[in-house]
Amino acid sequence: MYDAAIIGTGPAGVSAAINLKIHNKKIIWFGSARGSKKVDRAELVLNYLGLPEVTGAQLNFAFMHHAERMGLEICDEVVTGVYDLGEKFTLIANDNQYDAKSVIICTGVETAKPIEGELELLGRGVSYCATCDGNLYKGKTIGILCTEKRFEHELEYLCSLAKFAYVMPLYKDFDVQATNVKIVLQKPKRLEGGLRLNKIIFKDGVAEVDGMFILKGSVSPTTLMSGLAVNEQGHIMVNRKQATNISGVFAAGDCTGMPYQYAKAIGEGNVAAHSVIEFLATKA
Amino acid sequence: MYDAAIIGTGPAGVSAAINLKIHNKKIIWFGSARGSKKVDRAELVLNYLGLPEVTGAQLNFAFMHHAERMGLEICDEVVTGVYDLGEKFTLIANDNQYDAKSVIICTGVETAKPIEGELELLGRGVSYCATCDGNLYKGKTIGILCTEKRFEHELEYLCSLAKFAYVMPLYKDFDVQATNVKIVLQKPKRLEGGLRLNKIIFKDGVAEVDGMFILKGSVSPTTLMSGLAVNEQGHIMVNRKQATNISGVFAAGDCTGMPYQYAKAIGEGNVAAHSVIEFLATKA
Repeated sequence: MYDAAIIGTGPAGVSAAINLKIHNKKIIWFGSARGSKKVDRAELVLNYLGLPEVTGAQLNFAFMHHAERMGLEICDEVVTGVYDLGEKFTLIANDNQYDAKSVIICTGVETAKPIEGELELLGRGVSYCATCDGNLYKGKTIGILCTEKRFEHELEYLCSLAKFAYVMPLYKDFDVQATNVKIVLQKPKRLEGGLRLNKIIFKDGVAEVDGMFILKGSVSPTTLMSGLAVNEQGHIMVNRKQATNISGVFAAGDCTGMPYQYAKAIGEGNVAAHSVIEFLATKA
Repeated sequence: MYDAAIIGTGPAGVSAAINLKIHNKKIIWFGSARGSKKVDRAELVLNYLGLPEVTGAQLNFAFMHHAERMGLEICDEVVTGVYDLGEKFTLIANDNQYDAKSVIICTGVETAKPIEGELELLGRGVSYCATCDGNLYKGKTIGILCTEKRFEHELEYLCSLAKFAYVMPLYKDFDVQATNVKIVLQKPKRLEGGLRLNKIIFKDGVAEVDGMFILKGSVSPTTLMSGLAVNEQGHIMVNRKQATNISGVFAAGDCTGMPYQYAKAIGEGNVAAHSVIEFLATKA
């Protein structure tokens, strides 16, 4: 049992992780070992206090280096579900289960809206997890939308199972060798189906499929955890302690709302870590 | 007329200042050009993301260097009053007046409680401002409590006016040459008087005085601005936008409550700056 599970390796997640580490809490930390893609791609950052005029890549490196230097390890799995079991939380990531006494959600904001039909058909042909659901599509035809290079191994795994796959890479240096695929360089317009998904609708065509995998770094807050209160913009509602409406669950960074700023995210990650420490003390 | 007045040069204040500067706002920034004494004195800071294992002095230098590099200037005066005049705020600092459309309070927490009688006799013999009130005590006997070396020039000015002064320096390297003073190496226990202050009570003695100057970097939030809502701990109450109960007045950093963390202060300074930008846009 972990004291805390932290979801996300952007600035808020790193900040939460180093603060809990300093306090000797037993944590599991999910996300990309490469940190935040969003920070990494920033051209020039003028307002990160103490490091004037850094590139996003330098800043991202500085954050991840800090975490590494403190001996923090990252579990490179995507959490697709958090379940409140009363005395603990169970997290599902890549078909594995992890138990924690508290959770800090630092999943950022999805700049991409869900595809039409994605949320409606989730669990009925649409999946976020290759490891969990891949086997269901052995010898079948599937669609695979891949948002980041780091998910290519999952994509390859899915291609090795499927008879045929429509592959939609959403980044530039896509590099997967497979013969049973058709590369489609666009995002689907819509996913369709009755009881189950059976069609991917593109701008200029239709693919008949048995399933659709959407490989992305995070899922929306309400998909991640049912019952979590979000506002009209889809941001997780938190108080000044970064507590959500669910006791033991905290959130920090862009997922809690504007302004989308590194300093805000880091401050909130810090506060969330301190709130977790207080929360754990009440349980001890 | 300034777009914003920022009070305080600790991490929250620096963060607010650089963010408003980036957005080309016309600001006036009050505090010590040496930044935060509290940061400066921290032995080792492990959790300032991106700068692992820095001393407080290094961190404080990095913050102030960042501000300097962005061309920010600091007005080394102590704001003792903020007045809401409807369409603008007027700030009183060292007998000068400044007008601003908005205010960000980043005054930190006073670790020292007020002296017994201090708040009751404020304006009736007790003063925070040598420039404002010094002349009232020409040829008289006064007490001067000096909390920081940077106020020694005010102390010297007061000694040049007074007939005699009881001087209470609260730091080590006190260095003022004056013949009409008695150095008292302790904080008063109590200030006494009827209509006006007339006695300083020490642990082992009493000084009869006409006035008492308390030279410190910040005054308490409610002394600074009447009507400002604070909680039971004396922290300024703010929402997630760092807005106080007074429209146009924001607060950030330790003065808004625990945890007293640099990351929190910097995040809040950033958010407060963005809230000011939004506020100014509604006035334009």
